[in-house]
Amino acid sequence: MRLVMYDLAGADDRHRFSPYCWRTRMACAHKGLALDAVSWRFTEKDQLPQPNTGTVPVLVDGDTVVADSWNIAAYLDQHYPQPPLFDSPAARSEALLIKYWTERTLHPFVTRMAVSDIWRALHPKDQPYFRESREKRLGATLEQVTANRAQTRVKFREALEPLRAMLAEQPFICGASPAYADYIVFSLFMWARGASRFELLEPTDPVGAWRQKLLDLYDGLADKAPPYPA
Amino acid sequence: MRLVMYDLAGADDRHRFSPYCWRTRMACAHKGLALDAVSWRFTEKDQLPQPNTGTVPVLVDGDTVVADSWNIAAYLDQHYPQPPLFDSPAARSEALLIKYWTERTLHPFVTRMAVSDIWRALHPKDQPYFRESREKRLGATLEQVTANRAQTRVKFREALEPLRAMLAEQPFICGASPAYADYIVFSLFMWARGASRFELLEPTDPVGAWRQKLLDLYDGLADKAPPYPA
Repeated sequence: MRLVMYDLAGADDRHRFSPYCWRTRMACAHKGLALDAVSWRFTEKDQLPQPNTGTVPVLVDGDTVVADSWNIAAYLDQHYPQPPLFDSPAARSEALLIKYWTERTLHPFVTRMAVSDIWRALHPKDQPYFRESREKRLGATLEQVTANRAQTRVKFREALEPLRAMLAEQPFICGASPAYADYIVFSLFMWARGASRFELLEPTDPVGAWRQKLLDLYDGLADKAPPYPA
Repeated sequence: MRLVMYDLAGADDRHRFSPYCWRTRMACAHKGLALDAVSWRFTEKDQLPQPNTGTVPVLVDGDTVVADSWNIAAYLDQHYPQPPLFDSPAARSEALLIKYWTERTLHPFVTRMAVSDIWRALHPKDQPYFRESREKRLGATLEQVTANRAQTRVKFREALEPLRAMLAEQPFICGASPAYADYIVFSLFMWARGASRFELLEPTDPVGAWRQKLLDLYDGLADKAPPYPA
């Protein structure tokens, strides 16, 4: 039986860029699980299966519904153990710090570089909701938030220094091969790639080489995903 | 046989505040290994056993000499496996990212809050070396670096947000009980505590509650260490 994931889509139905959904997509591919990604839009909260928190991903596995990408990762490791997303209890626990590093430290930089591009890529029916909710949260218009994005990029690249230093000693966050902590950080780049043509990295950045290895994984699953609409 | 660690000492010989040596001290306590911490000062590079990189900790275990806190952690897990510092290969690999998050993102804040206090706490014979090498690296006098430390503290507290968010979901970085990734981040606070009376955290910060649990571990090993000289 194929798994089903409710997945944020842009104006173009093939255009999927939620970083949280990318985590789940990579996690399923890691385990060789077939996944149908159902397009969903911000304003279709009533169309999500229960229980949910009004956000995606929501995973449907037969009669089981699991919401939240972190819970989904735990569910997948429990029900489809091989190969594991977390190879030990501490590996899972440490990944939670890496998740919050990604969400609290790195995500805000991507917001400040790409949020106005994200708005443009959305389905017209989602655009008013997105603008209103994000401008309220950010305390500024989307255009103001991204006005100095060349400067923001300098700071974003500085914030990646821990990852860059680590990559000098091992190929992936999880060691010799990638696992869930890699997918968490990588999915941030898939969000940016799907939502904007603004390039986040310098061509020679070792983080870019790591990103390319993840783009190539699983027969190029991520690399084949449609990037930001022309 | 007791292990021996060469350990940075201040003007007062009992005064030990190297964050790298604290990692090793906590790692040995984790395994119940007795450790003699030999006082060493920056200008005594010729007194370190070979091989070394001119820095501490250097661990001596019988005929074996291991330099660098990260290498020492791996050595300890190999030769004294229980309880492990890393319970799996990915737990060790993820800890390397957490190590570099600590060193590249968090350490510079502590430098900017405490480096002039550190200088004051050093043995007089180390002070000229420390001032010259650090001012060259930082491109400013030690006093200039710490001039705006109230502002630096605001940014440091922001940078701890990933740890704070994680602590709402689990008690330690490594999960239900602490292990090496906890000791890495905790040792930063031992550095600040040993080198300065400038308090880094707000009294209500959950990071402070986590720090207190680590201070209390192993019969109060860290809590009993002499703090910054009065």
